[in-house]
Amino acid sequence: MNIYLDHAATTPLNKEVAELMFDISLSHFGNPSSTHSFGRKSKSLLEFNRKSVAENLGALPSEIYFTSGGTESNNHVLRMCVENLGVKTIISSKIEHHAVTLTLEDLEKNRNTTVLFVQIKENGHIDLMHLEQLLKENNNVLVSLMHVNNEIGNILDIVTVGTLTQKHQALFHSDMVQSIGILPINFGDLNIDFASGSAHKFNGPKGVGVLYCKKKNKLKPLITGGSQERDLRAGTENISGIAGLTKALDISTKKYADKKAKIETIKQYFISKIESDLPDIKFNGDYKQNSSYTILSIALPPTIENGMLLFNFDLNGISVSGGSACSSGSSKGSHVFQELNQHIGYSPIRFSFGETSTQEEIDFVIDFIKTLF
Amino acid sequence: MNIYLDHAATTPLNKEVAELMFDISLSHFGNPSSTHSFGRKSKSLLEFNRKSVAENLGALPSEIYFTSGGTESNNHVLRMCVENLGVKTIISSKIEHHAVTLTLEDLEKNRNTTVLFVQIKENGHIDLMHLEQLLKENNNVLVSLMHVNNEIGNILDIVTVGTLTQKHQALFHSDMVQSIGILPINFGDLNIDFASGSAHKFNGPKGVGVLYCKKKNKLKPLITGGSQERDLRAGTENISGIAGLTKALDISTKKYADKKAKIETIKQYFISKIESDLPDIKFNGDYKQNSSYTILSIALPPTIENGMLLFNFDLNGISVSGGSACSSGSSKGSHVFQELNQHIGYSPIRFSFGETSTQEEIDFVIDFIKTLF
Repeated sequence: MNIYLDHAATTPLNKEVAELMFDISLSHFGNPSSTHSFGRKSKSLLEFNRKSVAENLGALPSEIYFTSGGTESNNHVLRMCVENLGVKTIISSKIEHHAVTLTLEDLEKNRNTTVLFVQIKENGHIDLMHLEQLLKENNNVLVSLMHVNNEIGNILDIVTVGTLTQKHQALFHSDMVQSIGILPINFGDLNIDFASGSAHKFNGPKGVGVLYCKKKNKLKPLITGGSQERDLRAGTENISGIAGLTKALDISTKKYADKKAKIETIKQYFISKIESDLPDIKFNGDYKQNSSYTILSIALPPTIENGMLLFNFDLNGISVSGGSACSSGSSKGSHVFQELNQHIGYSPIRFSFGETSTQEEIDFVIDFIKTLF
Repeated sequence: MNIYLDHAATTPLNKEVAELMFDISLSHFGNPSSTHSFGRKSKSLLEFNRKSVAENLGALPSEIYFTSGGTESNNHVLRMCVENLGVKTIISSKIEHHAVTLTLEDLEKNRNTTVLFVQIKENGHIDLMHLEQLLKENNNVLVSLMHVNNEIGNILDIVTVGTLTQKHQALFHSDMVQSIGILPINFGDLNIDFASGSAHKFNGPKGVGVLYCKKKNKLKPLITGGSQERDLRAGTENISGIAGLTKALDISTKKYADKKAKIETIKQYFISKIESDLPDIKFNGDYKQNSSYTILSIALPPTIENGMLLFNFDLNGISVSGGSACSSGSSKGSHVFQELNQHIGYSPIRFSFGETSTQEEIDFVIDFIKTLF
């Protein structure tokens, strides 16, 4: 068996999306910045896509910018808020993705930015009381907190955080790489200033992302040059990639309820099998409450030799993760798990599900885990 | 007729490249940073592509980095040389692409960088005597000069510039967006520290570029986060785009002589037709000597009403440019032409040729231009 349970790292490209991208890459090759017919044809498609993405996210077309991915979007917001919007202090958490944590390190070291970390509760949620305290004590603040934690699946209460940041005149950025295209998002209902999304997390192409920027905020470009993306992001637009992101988001939005129901069933089945058959295993994060239906992080007891754990899953045809894919080459392990300290001495394994995931796959995984004991 | 003579703005995607990208986007969806089989399969393809690009550019695989495009590559080098390599002064020219000139403006304004401009000769070439003088007078210098000028086609003498920069212990970056994949490049023979390339200029996909960084130089990431691209560029790699760039470069490198011969014939035919039939038209730049076979910039006399010039070409089915596509929406016209001052009062029109360009298209264009007089 070849079982892919790492959809939080990346998802298979939807074939319909791939076919559309193929067609558009050949039919719409003109540079959208060119004023002639080939250029206008591409420009028109570009703006059609922006409108579609905006509609699916409850935003205005003028609030949607296309980037090369979630990491660039995160960098853009954090760096340009400090550079051009007068942000002096960024309140974040230690369980963000490296695209945020390492950018904050750089801003702290090289741009005189004060970085404060909100406390994390034992279940992996942000301590909202502590967040409000930090907001009260600081001015010129950007809060950067991810919507869905990529390692444990916890869902942030973005409504409350948005209310708090608005109350204290702070800006609010959310890394939504694990929620845009996965959970329904309506920016019109949210007090979020900036958000980052990535197409390859919702069966779209790699190399293209989205940056939501609420109309009132005037960000400057991270990458300077041509006046593309209304002067926010220079460089010839990746038309076929953008069309792929748009199509994938549209598919995902339209079938959200079915997709969620199907995957949620798989996740619940996995949880119940572990609870009944493998009682020594613990769960990371708030796995039964405010948690994404796509992610389940378990903690294997210290009795299991963990040196070759991921290797053994892989040898048995099961593709899973010890943490974020982006840090999987690192010998330090997951910074999120270390920070949580929920199950000391245990080894985290992240399972993340997609539409192709089946109960048979879960049964196979459960049987394999039993062999580890 | 629908005539596309704007290949310097962007080129049609090679169908063979599009087909390969389609296949790879479905077959290699794993995240190269994942350690499991899906990830390793993508990682292996990524490194195979890097090796191929390196071979076709006479570089080491470790000197090749993949980015989201030429603009990002240019930003990366300029910004990180100032940020991390101790560069205090950048010597460049006023006829660079906006990805360079506007980045230099930003560095001058916000990073205390001294920006000096080398004088341009009447034929559009860099004054190498002036360059050496500036190199003698300044320390901690980066020279940034484009290889092929995107508006007039002039080819820089990169061998001499490389010798001068080496002699004066300066770093040398070249924006090679109009030469990588178009002219043969062998970095092993050149004293170039950094170079930028873009796939969509040589019949590859949009949204993917290359950054050459000579082994001795240790650049830091412009976009921080995961440890992709050996810590130089965070963000999940655009595997199918990278495969497309690689394939397009390989095709272009293998058939370079034929491609050049074919397109050069078209350009020479165009020049001879203008010289014989339209003697009032002048040429911009060093069009008969050190000039790319793909670009020809002409200057229409002041007697021709220029307000609707590009619009009229377009109405007649001829897609050309007044300057760079990236500034074509601007009312200021071409900054390169303004700087050259070669034919005062004349209006520049850039024709840029590709493999599909034909003599019949040139005849049609010549006939149309005659109607303007």
